[in-house]
Amino acid sequence: MTDSPHKEDMKKLQKEQREKVKSKLIDRGILIVNTGDGKGKSTAAFGTAMRAVGHGYKVAVVQFIKGNWSTGEQKIFEKFDEITHVVSGDGFTWDTQDKSKDIESAESGWQKVEALIEECRGDNPKYHLIVLDELNIALSYGYLDVKKVVDVLRDKPENLNIMVTGRGAPEELISIADTVTEMKPIKHAFDNGIQAQRGIEY
Amino acid sequence: MTDSPHKEDMKKLQKEQREKVKSKLIDRGILIVNTGDGKGKSTAAFGTAMRAVGHGYKVAVVQFIKGNWSTGEQKIFEKFDEITHVVSGDGFTWDTQDKSKDIESAESGWQKVEALIEECRGDNPKYHLIVLDELNIALSYGYLDVKKVVDVLRDKPENLNIMVTGRGAPEELISIADTVTEMKPIKHAFDNGIQAQRGIEY
Repeated sequence: MTDSPHKEDMKKLQKEQREKVKSKLIDRGILIVNTGDGKGKSTAAFGTAMRAVGHGYKVAVVQFIKGNWSTGEQKIFEKFDEITHVVSGDGFTWDTQDKSKDIESAESGWQKVEALIEECRGDNPKYHLIVLDELNIALSYGYLDVKKVVDVLRDKPENLNIMVTGRGAPEELISIADTVTEMKPIKHAFDNGIQAQRGIEY
Repeated sequence: MTDSPHKEDMKKLQKEQREKVKSKLIDRGILIVNTGDGKGKSTAAFGTAMRAVGHGYKVAVVQFIKGNWSTGEQKIFEKFDEITHVVSGDGFTWDTQDKSKDIESAESGWQKVEALIEECRGDNPKYHLIVLDELNIALSYGYLDVKKVVDVLRDKPENLNIMVTGRGAPEELISIADTVTEMKPIKHAFDNGIQAQRGIEY
């Protein structure tokens, strides 16, 4: 067994990778969207928030649907002063059964978002990352005006990173985003009669 | 403006949701696979690990590719005794340029995984969740035998949750998994000349 052909391949990959990295010259904060019907949209946002905190950055998390992040996340958040956690909304839409109340919640959440973004302007920006969890739901249900939201996100401070989650991201948001991932369900334990697992799925 | 039709819809959704939850009777640990070419596979695993820790559970993380999780995650891990963190492997495959060394790393990592799984048998299982980060890469490169790995994962202790990440999950693994999500790239900042952002992407 010889490593030579493999080694050649790997050298080529290494060279390509290094050139790729070198050619990436723009350094600014990005707008990230996690959408799709699969798992992991909010969980990846939570992971990204914790990674940023690990680097010593400040992070704000705004939840547009109450109850989406559970006691597990909550207890981790409480341990870190770097995290500002805002809950907008009074519960899942199928629990409130009151559209006007949901719209009110979404709008009060959005006002908070605008205020958080303002705190990131100037020489001393407060947050490295703002997570807008389930904002896509508020947009796709028509609880918030897509144009209004897109205008604010497009004009975000240059170094600020924003991560938006939720199924059904509107096209207008996708078009201004830098990185968009669709979490696509291939299969789900729930469909085979298995309960959601505490400490894993919630 | 009336809320009634909306309220009816939401009531129906609420009822369906409750029945769905009630009908899910099987309570056991699950095998989860995050695959695909998009972002968020390892980040969602990191988020899931932190959520489990937030619930007070113990978690083991085995990295099959060194450097995949950076100082951000590292610093968070260090704060929690609940996390056992094992690194298998000596670097990215395109950095080592030595296939036999990579195989050796993967195999030593896998032996560690088998030992961790054994610690979860019996009345006093040690971990609630074991994350096998980038195991799919080791499998798709042929560094580990798929059948051997699948046999061990299929025979996992009933209450143990296992999360496998990495692009190119083999079909045999997908077929025994409970929940599989494909992270599908819609677009990526990197492709538009934007540098990976510290505290966000690494």
